[in-house]
Amino acid sequence: MSAFAFVTPTWDAAPWAAAMRQAAPHLNVRVWPNMGHVNDIQYAACWLPPANVMTGLPNLKVIFSLGAGVDAILADPTLPRHVPIVRVVDPDLTNRMSEFIVMHVLMHHRQQLRLNENQRNGIWQAFTQHAAKDVSVGIMGLGVLGQDAARKLEVMGFQVRGWSRSAKVIAGVDSFAGPEQLNEFLKDTDILISLLPATPETDGIINRDLLSKLSRAGPFAAPILINAGRGRQQNENDILACLDDGTLYGASLDVFTQEPLPKTSRLWNHPKVMVSPHSAADSEPLTICTYIAAQIAAFQKDKSHSNQIDRKLSY
Amino acid sequence: MSAFAFVTPTWDAAPWAAAMRQAAPHLNVRVWPNMGHVNDIQYAACWLPPANVMTGLPNLKVIFSLGAGVDAILADPTLPRHVPIVRVVDPDLTNRMSEFIVMHVLMHHRQQLRLNENQRNGIWQAFTQHAAKDVSVGIMGLGVLGQDAARKLEVMGFQVRGWSRSAKVIAGVDSFAGPEQLNEFLKDTDILISLLPATPETDGIINRDLLSKLSRAGPFAAPILINAGRGRQQNENDILACLDDGTLYGASLDVFTQEPLPKTSRLWNHPKVMVSPHSAADSEPLTICTYIAAQIAAFQKDKSHSNQIDRKLSY
Repeated sequence: MSAFAFVTPTWDAAPWAAAMRQAAPHLNVRVWPNMGHVNDIQYAACWLPPANVMTGLPNLKVIFSLGAGVDAILADPTLPRHVPIVRVVDPDLTNRMSEFIVMHVLMHHRQQLRLNENQRNGIWQAFTQHAAKDVSVGIMGLGVLGQDAARKLEVMGFQVRGWSRSAKVIAGVDSFAGPEQLNEFLKDTDILISLLPATPETDGIINRDLLSKLSRAGPFAAPILINAGRGRQQNENDILACLDDGTLYGASLDVFTQEPLPKTSRLWNHPKVMVSPHSAADSEPLTICTYIAAQIAAFQKDKSHSNQIDRKLSY
Repeated sequence: MSAFAFVTPTWDAAPWAAAMRQAAPHLNVRVWPNMGHVNDIQYAACWLPPANVMTGLPNLKVIFSLGAGVDAILADPTLPRHVPIVRVVDPDLTNRMSEFIVMHVLMHHRQQLRLNENQRNGIWQAFTQHAAKDVSVGIMGLGVLGQDAARKLEVMGFQVRGWSRSAKVIAGVDSFAGPEQLNEFLKDTDILISLLPATPETDGIINRDLLSKLSRAGPFAAPILINAGRGRQQNENDILACLDDGTLYGASLDVFTQEPLPKTSRLWNHPKVMVSPHSAADSEPLTICTYIAAQIAAFQKDKSHSNQIDRKLSY
């Protein structure tokens, strides 16, 4: 019997193991550190695996990343080089991320923070509203998640543009690619969304230099930032300073350089910031495990697997 | 020269008159009560016209409603019977209403009220999220606004159902019609949206009897109400009691029996309610006036006009 291991030291793996047993009854499911006979383990799903754990599995055939990003796996320098790493690319996860993106774009567009404050104070006051067609939303990162969010924002009536490492052709989306087109992408973006993968190239990319290049011609005369990528891509001191001096009009942050976000962070109670606890796209364990079980079944049948990551690109 | 009059005693008509002069430079634009020679006035746009004002315009050819609903015009019992009343059916207004609907459905679905409270208290806590495909959104009123909202909610992944006076066939939407199918529509609706026109039949329809027939099998075990129709359709004491006893999980109300919502209303600071100041679909005056100018031009050319209301149906 093939064995499958969860290696997720920072998570409670119990609900995941239960879901995996339900999704793949033929697999022997184990949870680190209780790995049993390591020779049995052919498949593993990881989040921040400890050093040397994965190398200690001699018959490992596929490593699954529990999430759309794989930075939490690649952070392990001892990872075996010959084992493919497969990302979870599930429509359920994609749809949840687009819910988050569309909701936060709309909340900024419709000035929900001001409406919340007025409600608390019992103030009946309509604001000047702007038409979505006059607002440009720019998405950094046009992978599966970025493309789905782009399509849905376009349905809602926004102008949509995107920026990615390599050029993409997407109906209804103005696409820009590579460092040489970044400034052109930024200069007409009113609401900036980051869904970038975490790579050395994107570390710290959301800083004052980038934010100051965004459009100031939008409805609020200053741009809005939504980051649902990774916290290490953002300079939080720069973001706070840009909010305070008007370089930014508002921000929604789901990810942070340190998670949980420390109690002392000014982001918690900044009046122009919406904070969420890295929950933009939390799929249910059974949905993810069903995806992984299907991938394992395909691999067992003909050695195939989809959505393998390119370690050189880190995504 | 044809004259055009705004008859909007409860509004500041100045920005509307300026927009109309820009949209239709060939029209002589007047604002009640400064009507000049009433014989010149061939077109008028109204909101809550005073009694006998419209009958006093002998050469009136078309009355325009400033908004999707016409109840604020039909409330005038002295309205001339022979003059057609035309609704504003502008894609801009439709799109804004769908922004409001999609945003409020997502805010309830993603538990934004709990996230707001946690942010205020510096609490980092992810909740169990539910997949949109497991949530049923039911729309009462399947006119232009309801159909557009239905399409966009379906794109976001929700199950969408609708109820209207006469049967409608809309791709991807389970449709119910008439009083005899109302209970069947309600019993599997997790999030109820009202976009009903204000008619004698819909007065007070959103009451405890209706709310208690909604699904209790949804993610939160109690349903959610979103009313962006008219305040006179809702019984606010029933809504508050249903929120308090768990018959309702939450509500978003953009309209109220009395507007502005009185300071003393418990709705303002109920923890499960989102209040907005009848601003779900506020188009800019120039957009609406451009629509009206185009309608007048068509009428002047060949006496045609679209979106005339049926006074018997009141919409």
